[in-house]
Amino acid sequence: AAKISASMTNETSDRPLVHFTPNKGWMNDPNGLWYDEKDAKWHLYFQYNPNDTVWGTPLFWGHATSDDLTNWEDQPIAIAPKRNDSGAFSGSMVVDYNNTSGFFNDTIDPRQRCVAIWTYNTPESEEQYISYSLDGGYTFTEYQKNPVLAANSTQFRDPKVFWYEPSQKWIMTAAKSQDYKIEIYSSDDLKSWKLESAFANEGFLGYQYECPGLIEVPTEQDPSKSYWVMFISINPGAPAGGSFNQYFVGSFNGTHFEAFDNQSRVVDFGKDYYALQTFFNTDPTYGSALGIAWASNWEYSAFVPTNPWRSSMSLVRKFSLNTEYQANPETELINLKAEPILNISNAGPWSRFATNTTLTKANSYNVDLSNSTGTLEFELVYAVNTTQTISKSVFADLSLWFKGLEDPEEYLRMGFEVSASSFFLDRGNSKVKFVKENPYFTNRMSVNNQPFKSENDLSYYKVYGLLDQNILELYFNDGDVVSTNTYFMTTGNALGSVNMTTGVDNLFYIDKFQVREVK
Amino acid sequence: AAKISASMTNETSDRPLVHFTPNKGWMNDPNGLWYDEKDAKWHLYFQYNPNDTVWGTPLFWGHATSDDLTNWEDQPIAIAPKRNDSGAFSGSMVVDYNNTSGFFNDTIDPRQRCVAIWTYNTPESEEQYISYSLDGGYTFTEYQKNPVLAANSTQFRDPKVFWYEPSQKWIMTAAKSQDYKIEIYSSDDLKSWKLESAFANEGFLGYQYECPGLIEVPTEQDPSKSYWVMFISINPGAPAGGSFNQYFVGSFNGTHFEAFDNQSRVVDFGKDYYALQTFFNTDPTYGSALGIAWASNWEYSAFVPTNPWRSSMSLVRKFSLNTEYQANPETELINLKAEPILNISNAGPWSRFATNTTLTKANSYNVDLSNSTGTLEFELVYAVNTTQTISKSVFADLSLWFKGLEDPEEYLRMGFEVSASSFFLDRGNSKVKFVKENPYFTNRMSVNNQPFKSENDLSYYKVYGLLDQNILELYFNDGDVVSTNTYFMTTGNALGSVNMTTGVDNLFYIDKFQVREVK
Repeated sequence: AAKISASMTNETSDRPLVHFTPNKGWMNDPNGLWYDEKDAKWHLYFQYNPNDTVWGTPLFWGHATSDDLTNWEDQPIAIAPKRNDSGAFSGSMVVDYNNTSGFFNDTIDPRQRCVAIWTYNTPESEEQYISYSLDGGYTFTEYQKNPVLAANSTQFRDPKVFWYEPSQKWIMTAAKSQDYKIEIYSSDDLKSWKLESAFANEGFLGYQYECPGLIEVPTEQDPSKSYWVMFISINPGAPAGGSFNQYFVGSFNGTHFEAFDNQSRVVDFGKDYYALQTFFNTDPTYGSALGIAWASNWEYSAFVPTNPWRSSMSLVRKFSLNTEYQANPETELINLKAEPILNISNAGPWSRFATNTTLTKANSYNVDLSNSTGTLEFELVYAVNTTQTISKSVFADLSLWFKGLEDPEEYLRMGFEVSASSFFLDRGNSKVKFVKENPYFTNRMSVNNQPFKSENDLSYYKVYGLLDQNILELYFNDGDVVSTNTYFMTTGNALGSVNMTTGVDNLFYIDKFQVREVK
Repeated sequence: AAKISASMTNETSDRPLVHFTPNKGWMNDPNGLWYDEKDAKWHLYFQYNPNDTVWGTPLFWGHATSDDLTNWEDQPIAIAPKRNDSGAFSGSMVVDYNNTSGFFNDTIDPRQRCVAIWTYNTPESEEQYISYSLDGGYTFTEYQKNPVLAANSTQFRDPKVFWYEPSQKWIMTAAKSQDYKIEIYSSDDLKSWKLESAFANEGFLGYQYECPGLIEVPTEQDPSKSYWVMFISINPGAPAGGSFNQYFVGSFNGTHFEAFDNQSRVVDFGKDYYALQTFFNTDPTYGSALGIAWASNWEYSAFVPTNPWRSSMSLVRKFSLNTEYQANPETELINLKAEPILNISNAGPWSRFATNTTLTKANSYNVDLSNSTGTLEFELVYAVNTTQTISKSVFADLSLWFKGLEDPEEYLRMGFEVSASSFFLDRGNSKVKFVKENPYFTNRMSVNNQPFKSENDLSYYKVYGLLDQNILELYFNDGDVVSTNTYFMTTGNALGSVNMTTGVDNLFYIDKFQVREVK
């Protein structure tokens, strides 16, 4: 019933190649993620407004499928709200292998017995609905007796359900958003839910809790050992502004999640990573804890210059817990490690890199990629000569300049500065109006980087970056720290010319710097 | 013994009028704050490198006094390190009224029996020293048997001591910085310290804990009731990058600080508020919980374009706990409220303001202050018409433009945007090299704002701002939320032309907007 707006039909932007973007319309939070074990197909559901490139009701569950978790195919709308002033809000997806729900008969492959648990938002209330699919997740039929969980609340949403094997129950985390409470429910059949506990007032509260998720994440060091991670999205009120994700590491016993400590943890240190959703099930080859988040920030997401769609998803990330994360030279912390899942078949060769070189102000590295797609990944391993003393007045930086091929005045600058001990990103070097003018679009952000090793008075740092048209994902030290930020250049001005400079001679040792283009 | 660097003698900047800045040299963390009840003089000690405008050793305890907590007078260095490669790092100041330390006789007014507790940093260790003053806090004599607390650590610093009356003991909070541990010690005499407990791994850990402080803060609603607030500075690793302060509200029994909850709280949502230090004692007329912080951020503080000094202190703020802080429409939280203490005798009249007007895109307000000192305060009370529906594609903002009188292209833009529900600041509109180029100097930041009231479909917001040459302090809703940010314009280009604009007609109601110049 909604009318497709002009913004959806008239705007254009460079569409990311390896990040999911809807063909048209508005997308925000991923809703349900599951892996069709039968068809070997990944399913991504997301908040979707097909009628406009901004959030609005009726809000749908968009659908995309992927064979490789990189290339996504738009699918028809999966779940639609009953009313135009309502929305099928965020939720999650489960595969009712054992047909606990009774929605499936034996004709439906157990691996495709997907049931969506989602929040039916109306101006009056937010209630949890379930819908089941008989076609492997393409179309869904609402459970006749919806809602399955109601709290007489307008702030009760985002049920994340998973099967807890020890108790043989379905577990749901749902946010009593403005109560700063993540309620944990259990269910035998996905239809009747029992409140088990609540995880509340933890970490940064921000304005409200959204999109919680409780998942068992294996440790990097010992994959057989795993801890439970509670993800909570905060919007607005992120410390850095707008929205962001935080997580807690703890234990889950089937009824209660108990954080190991009171430590608040940031999932992604960038501005554009929100509403992390994890896959109900996965292909073990990709990992057991996979998730995807909405690569935008509620502060400015509605104004991002993309058309006829707006928003990108992040890459699917494999999560693990680095139990030996060297937070500083004295302390190791349990830290959520995120590794990108990027299946690229048409990537170019690693070329024009610097290796084992010490930078000088005169010795700069420059890479001009022949492929001008604007999607490229790079790996930079560098070391800081810890014995060198740098004048406190000298900006001792290692900078990467990703310049536009068409217009080199547009560029991403990122790098590491010794005194700051942080990797910085400057995404403000763009002529795009949004970038220049929107005051919420933080131009500069930085992430504290710890060396992943120290040898020979060299503290080594590692950063992997993926630039995809207008989204940059930085993985530091193989993902111990992650920063996801969107960026916007003039349409068609693909970043492809890369420069590496330094402000201090012989301070940085470049272990490896390589760039390649994704086609 | 350190040589004053060229940076200290050759650089210039517009010096804040109402924020303390050292006459020359580098300043960072406030160290000890106390109120000379006898002389009615406030004493401010701070990390001070008189030899350069960057941090460096030997690091001193600078000293400034104030009669009104606004106008500060440089005083001679209070504490100097023994070695040039050492530093009298941060600490605190107590008044040993009862001469528990035995440093004072009856000739020293009990109100001036100040004893500094500070960290003697050397390359080898950080140990807690105490020094006592026999002249009311101007010169200090190290305790002969220093250190009074050693931990065989190079990461043990910033002792904040206060007298805990119930146990009749001195309580010290000191940071085992990279252990993420705030250790609580007790002492009978300031000489022998007993470890009582540790407050560790709380909140955002960042890179390290620094400058902790435990203070009993009265509630706004019931000043007779108070709670204890644990302040912890994080550097680097602040969620927003660099350094920041967080705090915890809880109880203190003399040995243990117990946070009421696991909620992490941000003291200041700006980039330039660090190492909050609270006054040992106060003039009750100003409040019982006063504090001052270093108005900079370790990410870029060394490059800030001020000369022959570098850094400013924040205003002294009166802290209280708003136990009814309306975090969102559903939840009230305990929130630290900060109110600026600003004693200005030569402030200009509140002029050229808009009052009870509805803004339109055509109806803008402009204030041109005759005084071009660049120090001005403003009060803006505005309301949002909650019944008006705004196109999701329209930037529904209320913006204030503080433009330079000399060069209007340099300006601070701040404001509120309805969809973001946040007050934003854009401090990047400057031609100063530092601002333009330093990638850590975050140009834009925002603070989630909640209305302080709602009437007649109008949600009212309040912001008080103080611009002082190159430091902006924003107090939202009378200080429920605070944001401190430095800014740098071309020297001499004092901000004095103020414009108020909106992007949407009849959306904002200006209850009050007034500006005045501080001379």
